[in-house]
Amino acid sequence: MFLHSCVPDFEPRNQLNFRLQATDGKARVGIVETDHGLLETPAFMPVGTQGSVKAIEQRELLAVGTQILLGNTYHLYLRPGTEVIEAAGGLHKFIGWSKPILTDSGGYQIFSLSDLRDVEEDGVTFRSHLDGSTHVFTPESVILIQRKLGSDIIMVLDECAPFPCDVGYAVRSNGLTLRWAERCKEAFEKEPARYGYSQALFGIVQGGVHAGVRQQSARTLVSMDFDGYAIGGLAVGEPVDQMYEMTALCEALLPADKPRYLMGVGTPENLLESIERGMDMFDCVLPTRNGRNANLFTRCGSINIRNAAYKTDFSPIDPECPCYACTNFTRAYLRHLFQAGEILALQLATIHNLSLYFWLMREARAAILEKRFREWKQQTIAGLRRNQMVFS
Amino acid sequence: MFLHSCVPDFEPRNQLNFRLQATDGKARVGIVETDHGLLETPAFMPVGTQGSVKAIEQRELLAVGTQILLGNTYHLYLRPGTEVIEAAGGLHKFIGWSKPILTDSGGYQIFSLSDLRDVEEDGVTFRSHLDGSTHVFTPESVILIQRKLGSDIIMVLDECAPFPCDVGYAVRSNGLTLRWAERCKEAFEKEPARYGYSQALFGIVQGGVHAGVRQQSARTLVSMDFDGYAIGGLAVGEPVDQMYEMTALCEALLPADKPRYLMGVGTPENLLESIERGMDMFDCVLPTRNGRNANLFTRCGSINIRNAAYKTDFSPIDPECPCYACTNFTRAYLRHLFQAGEILALQLATIHNLSLYFWLMREARAAILEKRFREWKQQTIAGLRRNQMVFS
Repeated sequence: MFLHSCVPDFEPRNQLNFRLQATDGKARVGIVETDHGLLETPAFMPVGTQGSVKAIEQRELLAVGTQILLGNTYHLYLRPGTEVIEAAGGLHKFIGWSKPILTDSGGYQIFSLSDLRDVEEDGVTFRSHLDGSTHVFTPESVILIQRKLGSDIIMVLDECAPFPCDVGYAVRSNGLTLRWAERCKEAFEKEPARYGYSQALFGIVQGGVHAGVRQQSARTLVSMDFDGYAIGGLAVGEPVDQMYEMTALCEALLPADKPRYLMGVGTPENLLESIERGMDMFDCVLPTRNGRNANLFTRCGSINIRNAAYKTDFSPIDPECPCYACTNFTRAYLRHLFQAGEILALQLATIHNLSLYFWLMREARAAILEKRFREWKQQTIAGLRRNQMVFS
Repeated sequence: MFLHSCVPDFEPRNQLNFRLQATDGKARVGIVETDHGLLETPAFMPVGTQGSVKAIEQRELLAVGTQILLGNTYHLYLRPGTEVIEAAGGLHKFIGWSKPILTDSGGYQIFSLSDLRDVEEDGVTFRSHLDGSTHVFTPESVILIQRKLGSDIIMVLDECAPFPCDVGYAVRSNGLTLRWAERCKEAFEKEPARYGYSQALFGIVQGGVHAGVRQQSARTLVSMDFDGYAIGGLAVGEPVDQMYEMTALCEALLPADKPRYLMGVGTPENLLESIERGMDMFDCVLPTRNGRNANLFTRCGSINIRNAAYKTDFSPIDPECPCYACTNFTRAYLRHLFQAGEILALQLATIHNLSLYFWLMREARAAILEKRFREWKQQTIAGLRRNQMVFS
């Protein structure tokens, strides 16, 4: 018995539709159309690794402005298992979310979470971080799993090279990633969608911080004609200037009529700088994880709400923020909740930090439409940097 | 700066108004009027010990049907401290809750949580469970703290006798509790309310499971004329039949025109049996704590949602429940959230279990008004007992 249907009553399309609406320099405003609805770009995707964004309900995700959720193939495959989600009729139904979902391929998680891994041409053998059991992901199996998950946007399997890595490693790793991308595309075209709505496939540009490798990766992927292009392997420890440099380098080679997704980025400032460099989509655990660690973003700088300075501060977290936390509770109460170890602290901090990220995206879109992005970005970053904290 | 005013714009009353609306046998339906609004009895009070009911937002407490919250003097005095709450303008403003609040006196917590305690005629010296610091509660100080907290209903300081305790201990302990009750009443009359709305004072009947001591306790408290009467020292390990026996014994001596509050009770079945014995108000951590431990109450028995039986059970927790969890998510998803350690599991389980408790209270009131309480109670308990689990 299902509670509600998530399948829209129109025919699936063959390709993801991306409408570019305006540009201001390289910054872009657009709309990505999926069978589960639209997402306005620049778009931020809250991270729902295991089918839930930590400490926030689905109705609250909608309320703060979420248009697309990110799930993770590696995690969902291991638990609850693809077969459970398939039996539910796909991930949307399983988690009670009727808007778009993008699933990461699991490549990044295999390289960051699993105990042992053995990368070969055919695929990667790894041990589950949960129980040590052995599993194999191939480009074909990862596509099959994501077909069964039913995500609106599927990511190819890639190898995420570490930072630092030498150019030799980057070249070999990127070669494998490109051959896997080709196999993913073939598997994607062969394997039908399961639930009556269409799914799109994004390629992932790798190459570390090596300009030549990045360029070769981007050119080759573009020649394969994906529905969109992600830039992976950044925000993994490299200096921020190198991240921006690689982003700009890739952007120059990616087609204007496809969405560009900068994976795993980042701070509010990182998002604005990357939007300026032509990026359209982002995901990051920062707003939710930092929130759970009492780090709250505000329009006037970040604060650690555990600080004694807030003990009797009866003002809102951010006086300009219209979120539930800011319009109903004070800094002093939030501080108390964190000090007392109350779960409500995590809930309110998550609602607020995500609200701030979505405010940032809305303002960015408006500024681009009005051709004042750079000026707005500079003012906004100046505000965000007040009381700036280090985010590790 | 305050976000909103919690002080209603009418004159404080001198006494708590309780309107008895109907009876069915000893079961009663009534309305308690406070300056922060009404509560319909029988009433369940979610436990917000530290100024938050664990894992649920204030707006969700309202949505599930909460009419009065319970806070704890011992905990709030220690953290964030009375002075912080006083600076906020009282507990309602501090926690963003504009409906009634009852604060427990802290007696029970001193005897169950603090490391060391020294009970003397004047009061009790104890060590904080947080940092080992030494504090003294006297009847007068506990009233003063609760005046500053600004709770709508204040509880007297009592000694909660352990179970088992011999009759000699019960007599001595009850003697002290009664002398403290007298001093609380005097302090309450002397110490003015702080925030422009009235507060009521409840006495607490003690006496363990010794009939004579209970009766003497009840008679003496009634002669002191409190705004309402609590029955304390039950649900502390005694057989459930003794709990019901003591409840009935006290009920016979308490005035019909004052609310009766059975402290710390209990399971859904305990609530219905106690309502039948004339009780009006209840508080218990069971729905919230059990929810966080994956024990979900349903109209057809309790379930441990972690059970493998629910792995692909795509039905709601309770098909008859109108709560957010039941109308949007499945048992399989809830199970996955618990297995994956997601905070959302705690949130949804809390919303559901509290919703079930408030459904029980609404149905109980309706059954009493329609003079069919006993029949409804028997049917409902039969349902609740299916798949019955042991709650420790």
